[in-house]
Amino acid sequence: MVKAKVFVLEKQFEGLPKEGDLRLVEEELPPIKNGEFLVEALYLSVDPYMRAYIPLNKFGEPVIGSQVGKIIESKNPKYPVGQHVVGYFGWRTHTISNGTSTIFDSKPSLVPKFGDLPLSLALGVLGMPGNTAYFGFLEICTPQAGEVVVVSSAAGAVGSHVGQIAKIKGCKVIGITGSDEKGKFLVDELGFDHFINYKTADLDKALDELAPEKIDCYFDNVGGEISSTILRHMNNYGRISVCGAISGYNNETEVKVTTIQRPMISFNLTMEGFIFSRWADRWTEGVQQNLKWIKAGKLKHPESVTEGFENMPKAFIDMLKGANIGKAIVKV
Amino acid sequence: MVKAKVFVLEKQFEGLPKEGDLRLVEEELPPIKNGEFLVEALYLSVDPYMRAYIPLNKFGEPVIGSQVGKIIESKNPKYPVGQHVVGYFGWRTHTISNGTSTIFDSKPSLVPKFGDLPLSLALGVLGMPGNTAYFGFLEICTPQAGEVVVVSSAAGAVGSHVGQIAKIKGCKVIGITGSDEKGKFLVDELGFDHFINYKTADLDKALDELAPEKIDCYFDNVGGEISSTILRHMNNYGRISVCGAISGYNNETEVKVTTIQRPMISFNLTMEGFIFSRWADRWTEGVQQNLKWIKAGKLKHPESVTEGFENMPKAFIDMLKGANIGKAIVKV
Repeated sequence: MVKAKVFVLEKQFEGLPKEGDLRLVEEELPPIKNGEFLVEALYLSVDPYMRAYIPLNKFGEPVIGSQVGKIIESKNPKYPVGQHVVGYFGWRTHTISNGTSTIFDSKPSLVPKFGDLPLSLALGVLGMPGNTAYFGFLEICTPQAGEVVVVSSAAGAVGSHVGQIAKIKGCKVIGITGSDEKGKFLVDELGFDHFINYKTADLDKALDELAPEKIDCYFDNVGGEISSTILRHMNNYGRISVCGAISGYNNETEVKVTTIQRPMISFNLTMEGFIFSRWADRWTEGVQQNLKWIKAGKLKHPESVTEGFENMPKAFIDMLKGANIGKAIVKV
Repeated sequence: MVKAKVFVLEKQFEGLPKEGDLRLVEEELPPIKNGEFLVEALYLSVDPYMRAYIPLNKFGEPVIGSQVGKIIESKNPKYPVGQHVVGYFGWRTHTISNGTSTIFDSKPSLVPKFGDLPLSLALGVLGMPGNTAYFGFLEICTPQAGEVVVVSSAAGAVGSHVGQIAKIKGCKVIGITGSDEKGKFLVDELGFDHFINYKTADLDKALDELAPEKIDCYFDNVGGEISSTILRHMNNYGRISVCGAISGYNNETEVKVTTIQRPMISFNLTMEGFIFSRWADRWTEGVQQNLKWIKAGKLKHPESVTEGFENMPKAFIDMLKGANIGKAIVKV
């Protein structure tokens, strides 16, 4: 008899989630049936999107999320014992799956060989955040060499990846982040040209100084007033990829910000929002290209690892507070 | 010696412009030189964009705007006496031009033959507003038969035109406007399917009722909270063409509205702003197609005509207040 540890929604979030909003419970799993397999979690992911999706959970239901696990029992020939699998199984140590998709049209899939790279990358640079960066930036912003790219939430899993792709494409890259420590990491370790600490800098002035030639591409992870300000610094025919709105996720009601219609018109801007699953049929392309860049030494993949399944709520809240650099991961 | 009557900027606008903000002066024109020609105004245009552009004028300088006039003297073989010309000559009864462009990369051009249609249409359905509707809607919204189209400021020159193109393309069309009278005109005279009076209706409820299948294309003339609300009713992969932001033009500072990043992401929306001059090289295509639709009885071209050059400020303010149906024109 396998006992799974599972986090369930206990109390609706108000503002920044609190550890007590989620409760750890134990669940006795039944024997697996034909077509099913049993997964033991190795690494779990905490991501910004969860702040928007977890409140849609029912109370007492497992919290949604993805993980890399090992198949420890199987009655499904497509998912053999010993293989590693990545899937949206939720915040739980053990899961019985039959291989069908849960959310985001995303079926559990066997983790391909990454050489000697860690398995956790399947949750980051070689998984959903990596493909979010790859397709969401390249397909929507269509960056050209010599252009100016601004990325918000630049030290996060997606932002830090987007900035590095922009450098690979020959762009000038400015990262917006919430601390000098994270900013310096972006410049010194990841090759960003500049950073702006939005908590201490005057964003308008900083953009005047760092991007006098104006911004061609803006990869938006945050929304809010930061994005309204950045739009006023765009070049004619600028492109904005809207990936996230983390600045508003912790608010009870939608934030009010300066309208963006004027810069949209004056500068002939194009803005496009997306969910990564739009490019589900090109998934492998993204993973393979990101893997190539890693092997060529062009794409770094910082991780902030929290140890212990029971620390998932803390890792989640720390990530929302911006404590992490790169991908936030929990190691069981 | 020709004396021109000219409106100049006297006082900076505060909120809704007042008649006293503009002053009528007389200007003695010199004899024309080689390469020049003299135009006498017949029809002048008042348009929403002027609320945003006139404040950029210097005090005492003629107010910007377009007109249809008659060439009454010429030393330029390209612009012969007796011909009608359309150009951005400003708010003035007589103008000396040498045929170069002033604003919007737009040179004065001879008005082509419209058959027995009025010359004033060169300022409306067969001019800038007509091409704004034609290109701004078709190129950015790419409407498909059976789709749901919402147009704001729907009784204005551009909005009333966009709605009719949407009907020609086989769409279901909902116009947002500020009075039941204008709304009924849109439905009864122009063939819109529905109207919503944003001053009296609950926009959220009205859209739930009139567009339960969700909105595919939104042609935005107003910005502000109306646009934030409409975006929450869009379909997956919806397209938004941002043409104007008239809701904010009379405000001293930029309006604060509900952020739009969430619907942009959740529904994979694309939003694009534009200035009509983007399609300057396809100008004739737009005019010819609009003319064809008029001749086929598919495109009506309502005008609200104010008599008398001295009434231009009143016509301008009335247009900003939404008193007009269709194109607002001043007849000298």
